[in-house]
Amino acid sequence: MYRINDNYLKLPGSYLFSTIGKKVNAFIEANPDKKVIRLGIGDVTLPLAPAIITALHKAVDEMADAATFKGYAPDLGYEFLRSAIVKNDYAARGVDLAIDEVFISDGAKSDSGNIGDIFAKNNRIAVSDPVYPVYVDTNAMAGRTGEYQKEKERWSDVIYMPCTEENEFAPQIPSETPDMIYLCCPNNPTGTAMKKEQLQAWVDFALEKGAVIIYDAAYEAYISEEDVPHTIYECDGAKKCAIEMRSFSKNAGFTGTRLGFTVIPKELKCEGVSLNSLWARRHGTKFNGAPYIIQRAGEAVYSEEGKKQTKEQIAYYMNNAKLIREGLASAGYTVFGGVNAPYIWLKTPDGMTSWDFFDYLLENLNIVGTPGSGFGPSGEGYFRLTAFGSLENTKEAMERLKK
Amino acid sequence: MYRINDNYLKLPGSYLFSTIGKKVNAFIEANPDKKVIRLGIGDVTLPLAPAIITALHKAVDEMADAATFKGYAPDLGYEFLRSAIVKNDYAARGVDLAIDEVFISDGAKSDSGNIGDIFAKNNRIAVSDPVYPVYVDTNAMAGRTGEYQKEKERWSDVIYMPCTEENEFAPQIPSETPDMIYLCCPNNPTGTAMKKEQLQAWVDFALEKGAVIIYDAAYEAYISEEDVPHTIYECDGAKKCAIEMRSFSKNAGFTGTRLGFTVIPKELKCEGVSLNSLWARRHGTKFNGAPYIIQRAGEAVYSEEGKKQTKEQIAYYMNNAKLIREGLASAGYTVFGGVNAPYIWLKTPDGMTSWDFFDYLLENLNIVGTPGSGFGPSGEGYFRLTAFGSLENTKEAMERLKK
Repeated sequence: MYRINDNYLKLPGSYLFSTIGKKVNAFIEANPDKKVIRLGIGDVTLPLAPAIITALHKAVDEMADAATFKGYAPDLGYEFLRSAIVKNDYAARGVDLAIDEVFISDGAKSDSGNIGDIFAKNNRIAVSDPVYPVYVDTNAMAGRTGEYQKEKERWSDVIYMPCTEENEFAPQIPSETPDMIYLCCPNNPTGTAMKKEQLQAWVDFALEKGAVIIYDAAYEAYISEEDVPHTIYECDGAKKCAIEMRSFSKNAGFTGTRLGFTVIPKELKCEGVSLNSLWARRHGTKFNGAPYIIQRAGEAVYSEEGKKQTKEQIAYYMNNAKLIREGLASAGYTVFGGVNAPYIWLKTPDGMTSWDFFDYLLENLNIVGTPGSGFGPSGEGYFRLTAFGSLENTKEAMERLKK
Repeated sequence: MYRINDNYLKLPGSYLFSTIGKKVNAFIEANPDKKVIRLGIGDVTLPLAPAIITALHKAVDEMADAATFKGYAPDLGYEFLRSAIVKNDYAARGVDLAIDEVFISDGAKSDSGNIGDIFAKNNRIAVSDPVYPVYVDTNAMAGRTGEYQKEKERWSDVIYMPCTEENEFAPQIPSETPDMIYLCCPNNPTGTAMKKEQLQAWVDFALEKGAVIIYDAAYEAYISEEDVPHTIYECDGAKKCAIEMRSFSKNAGFTGTRLGFTVIPKELKCEGVSLNSLWARRHGTKFNGAPYIIQRAGEAVYSEEGKKQTKEQIAYYMNNAKLIREGLASAGYTVFGGVNAPYIWLKTPDGMTSWDFFDYLLENLNIVGTPGSGFGPSGEGYFRLTAFGSLENTKEAMERLKK
């Protein structure tokens, strides 16, 4: 008689966005005349840049001709894309990587969920609170998080690092010793970013304790301040303790196109075993490469035209972020984030709960955002707005808020 | 101090295709004047069909316009594709499925590797021998297979079902009781297929013992005989014990385009827990959907033009299979497969080992195939040729063999 992985049964419901969807739909049904503006979901809205579209069409045409048709891709990614990544994302910032330290995938969500496969079950994880739910949920599925304590909204065996106004939303080195440390910088959901010396302290801590850092840099393209690192490998010693994940979702609008990558330096070893070779084995056995045409689209992101066009898209979203920050501030709100990330994290007024503020915004101003408590207990009393809407809608939302 | 998943260290090297590559390259270097014909690898060679190319271009254009741009896809797949699958692959064969019993993915390799996530570690697996290596390797990574016994080329806790000439390459019900049974039909590498009553016996056995069947139907489109089932759900009771996986790789040439799906009927429950909901949770947490443009390409496979064109491609490959079968038979070889699958499984002559025959073919006839022993110990003394080459090369290879 077969048995299921009953760790799945311990998972609490993941109802954040479905609850939001139901509330919004009920409101729209009851108020068909109101124009609801959605600044809740972290999905992009601008179309793919022209250079990417051209590359996609060209690659599709290659697939139409036996002479240029591409069958199975290299499991770990085409060299043309890995070279472009090594050159533009790393060498240009003074970080030397070999192309076989870069693994192409269908996105950072898959990679951050799957990376746990190469680690033993009995590792203790540390995560920020609030946090992107995938890190914790996938470790729960692997049996690494203990029991879920409903009243605390926490897992018994996870080290949580509260990120609040008091510590400027930067995770603090915990008193307990973790084995695997998840860091997301610039951060989803708080929109804040660690400075280089803060990240260096994490690298030093990981090296001292023999911990591995899973570094999610999906929002790297939004960094605008000088002292925020673009890759963890800018920190001394990081190649010996850190895995970095990147995505094309937010820098080039690939949320529905699916492409990302993971960097595992060959220096990263656990008692002599190379994590690079473990991941290569995992990738080659449980994955069959990202589509050729999508990898060509990824390559186009690094062309001169592609860089220019995607930079303009990021500027468009960051202009929205600025409007939101300034609009909220002038309306008397306390706001964070939005400088190195497309997320604005605001303090709910008058001690309202995150959900009360959600209802207030929806019912009175017809604006949809995301309750901070949905990302973890330390998110209570906070609220997330995103810069991914259109300029017109963002402006209108701010007008409503200022009234 | 973090620890790795040391099950990975138990995995034997996976050197089959790299050993073949090295031998072939060395031969070509030493004999630059010889024309080597490759009938070894299971990759398609015909370009994508025109209907698919048209759909890809159209979807790319949609991504270029804000009004039609698509961001995050539904985790489980777009309804347009799931509906087409339910209608064409199942309803048309008398099998009723709901669209939320179909999960779109990036391919059957990923799905057959990842499906183990939803099962407990302490399940005993049964596999055919020879077998597609992904089933065993991914279970080894999960710690489900015991120790690797090098001299036997087997894992201590796996139930192997030898498929040989004696049983016409059909896996036989084992004396030990498995919890998870992997079946691939039509089969890679033997190219043979079970008849409906043979598959029904497996379903009956699974229901009796409380086992789950992981049914890989990636080669379904190549079935030409009436009494070979196209889906396991043609068997009575299969919805209560079987998960089915399909791929667009071989029926529509998507090896480099990446699309597949898994069917988990809602009736499939383990002590009241729906496997469909476990997989939905896994899929939604560790995966972010297949690319929109690729899902539109998948939809086009089911259009009238797409069906006609992909059918012609399959006929092209199956004509190659026929030429290989007949060519080998007239040259005095004993051949199997190639009627319901694009693989021909031949007995090596004069009791040669699979690798000796590989060397013989390469050196004397300049033909590359795959040694049967590479797929498992019961593959020793057999050899795989594929029908995925060009007609010209296939004809020439047969001419050489007949001489």
